[in-house]
Amino acid sequence: MSDKINKYMQRAIDLSINSVNNGGGPFGAVIVKNGKIIAEASNSVTINNDPTAHAEVNAIRLATSQLKTYDLSGAEIYSSCEPCPMCLGAIYWAGIDKLFFANTKTDAKEIGFDDAFIYQEIALPFAKRKLLTKQTMRSEAQKAFTIWNEKEDKIEY
Amino acid sequence: MSDKINKYMQRAIDLSINSVNNGGGPFGAVIVKNGKIIAEASNSVTINNDPTAHAEVNAIRLATSQLKTYDLSGAEIYSSCEPCPMCLGAIYWAGIDKLFFANTKTDAKEIGFDDAFIYQEIALPFAKRKLLTKQTMRSEAQKAFTIWNEKEDKIEY
Repeated sequence: MSDKINKYMQRAIDLSINSVNNGGGPFGAVIVKNGKIIAEASNSVTINNDPTAHAEVNAIRLATSQLKTYDLSGAEIYSSCEPCPMCLGAIYWAGIDKLFFANTKTDAKEIGFDDAFIYQEIALPFAKRKLLTKQTMRSEAQKAFTIWNEKEDKIEY
Repeated sequence: MSDKINKYMQRAIDLSINSVNNGGGPFGAVIVKNGKIIAEASNSVTINNDPTAHAEVNAIRLATSQLKTYDLSGAEIYSSCEPCPMCLGAIYWAGIDKLFFANTKTDAKEIGFDDAFIYQEIALPFAKRKLLTKQTMRSEAQKAFTIWNEKEDKIEY
């Protein structure tokens, strides 16, 4: 078991190293299902001009696109670094069962990445965040939720 | 000022309603920069088989792709619902200045979405989360961070 974990994590780490050498950020991720790698990716934020293109998000998008489902239940993700809140959220939405990571968010902070700051911000009520945030027009917005709630043929996820 | 906020939010709400009617989730988002809508999107998780395809993430990806930059400093985002942790993380990574939202994460929970649960999970140390999580091989993974740190021509983001 531990051998397999090490093998998949080493692949995620190799991807993170290759990524730096190819002009991407120093992060890699691998998704495994039924003992097989179904997707692997590295960080391509600057390469693709996409702030959401972290290794984990890229790997999830690749896996779901290939399997033609938004549901990765039964899968494991191996990330060379502790996922940021965006990626951790994506892991929950994808229904992934297990997460393995190597570097920590503190390690990421030490080389200039904002993961730890975003974790702090998300834990605060929105009025206390550095991101200026305002709620408005809730009653108007409820309409979409009511239609959704009453829709009989909706695909829930 | 308030008129403009209402106008952009109404557009995000209209997108959320259209989305349900077109088979998507009940969420819409609009990104505004220099007084102009630069991107608008709705939730397409089930339509695109992409668990990351929330309205805010879709709008950010569209805006950065069109502007050919991963940096949306100076932009505002209007979301028909309080962003989940994934989308809030994406908003921070994109460097967006202001967030406006209408429905709350509690409203989203009431119609069956996991936003509030994911907020709870992210606030916990990983050993206490429902998502099985294990750290391993940190020393091996440090290599990518060291190479990144020493790289002189890297693009920081």
